[in-house]
Parts: sequence; C-alpha cells; structure tokens
Amino acid sequence: MADEEALLAANAAYYAAFQRADPTAMADVWAQDAVTCIHPGWMILEGRDEVLKSYRLILLNPNQDPVTARRPVVYVDGDTARVLCVESVGGGMLAATNLFRREGTEWKMIHHHASPIVQRMTEAPPRSRLN
Amino acid sequence: MADEEALLAANAAYYAAFQRADPTAMADVWAQDAVTCIHPGWMILEGRDEVLKSYRLILLNPNQDPVTARRPVVYVDGDTARVLCVESVGGGMLAATNLFRREGTEWKMIHHHASPIVQRMTEAPPRSRLN
Repeated sequence: MADEEALLAANAAYYAAFQRADPTAMADVWAQDAVTCIHPGWMILEGRDEVLKSYRLILLNPNQDPVTARRPVVYVDGDTARVLCVESVGGGMLAATNLFRREGTEWKMIHHHASPIVQRMTEAPPRSRLN
Repeated sequence: MADEEALLAANAAYYAAFQRADPTAMADVWAQDAVTCIHPGWMILEGRDEVLKSYRLILLNPNQDPVTARRPVVYVDGDTARVLCVESVGGGMLAATNLFRREGTEWKMIHHHASPIVQRMTEAPPRSRLN
C-alpha cells in the first residue's frame, strides 16, 4: 500500500508539473537515465535530454490545453511500476501509460505514452446515403 | 545481451501471433496475471480475460490489416523491460510500448500500448481561407 500511495503521488506530481507549466518540476519527475516517451501522435523519443526538450516545447507552448488525469490504476512489479490513467486534454480523452522505476525511496518516471481514446458515436447512416 | 535477445524474440513472438491470427499463440505471449492493454483508440483494458478477449476480436476480424513491427529498442529494468517499436498497419504507422516481466527463464508480456504516429504534411492554408 505504501508503494501504491507513493506511485499515485509520483503520478500526480507529473500532472502538477503540467498544470503549472513548470519544466523544472517536470525534470524532477523523470529518472536520470534510460528514459523514453511517446507523446500523442509523436515518434518514440529516447534519452533524458530529448524527452525533457519535448516537455519544454509542450509546457511553454501558449496554445497547449491544460492536462488533468483521473482514474489512475497502479501495478507494481518489483522495482518498476505502471500507472495507467485517463487524461483530459482540450475536451478530448487520452489513455496514458506512465512507467516508474524505484530509485532509493522515490519513484521516478522512466516512460510516458499517451494516445487519444476514440469516442464511439451512436451509428447513423452517412448523410450522402440518404440523398 | 542475453536479455536483449530474449526480449527481441518475445516481442517478435507477439507480432508473429498477430500475423498468424493465432489467439492461442497470443495467449502464450502474455503473462498470467496483472496484465493491461491499450489498443489504438481504446480505453484501458485490465486483466488477462479482458485482454485476451480483445485480441480474439482483433485477430479473428476479417477486416484487420496485417501488423508488422520494426526498429525495436530494448530497455531492461531488472525483472521488467520495455520494448518500443514502430508498427506498420494498413499503410499507417503506430508507436508501440510493449512491457515484459521475467518469469523464470521467459519474458512474458504484461502491457501493450499502441497509438498512431501523425505524419506531418507540408503545411498549406486550409481551403476555406482561400475563398
């Protein structure tokens, strides 16, 4: 249970850094080495420098919509863990995979992957077929 | 290096199960417990039953495009590991996060997350602005 609480706090710290648009707080969330990231629609990013550079671009973008997270679920596998959650961004929903590694008494992020959840609409025939 | 080779083989077995549309081979790729999955556009799935049910639907769908993977990169963190790769599906590209847990001498999949990579086109003004 202590692990789960610490992981929920580490996951919340990631989204708090987003909400404050704070690259320093974001850098503190991430591990020092062997980190990777897949932003929505982006290619795979590898390495702390490349990952933190991407967050600076995103956090300092004035058009970036606020990101909030809900319904986190935690899976601990020894000294690594997954937190999966649903992000709300600009009216859309994304599913997120956040991976953490235990470093001393802390959990540090080692991978983030987020992607849009497609909202399935009630099916209606395409308008062109009605004419 | 032995870990990396074994993980590349486990990752390849996942895509081989896809190519053969073989739910039994797919079930063998996955760990027995605490597994999760985020298919492109889908919500978070939790639990072996729910995950394997989703693969049966996908593998047995006659309209499912073939899935192949390339450029895998491997990150080992003790008894878990990430394999990130680029999937080709129906002319599109997806970025995939595949997580594995060491179980005895084998690596078993514990999480899969795949999402489309947006191909950035040369920017042109929207048509409506020309009129």
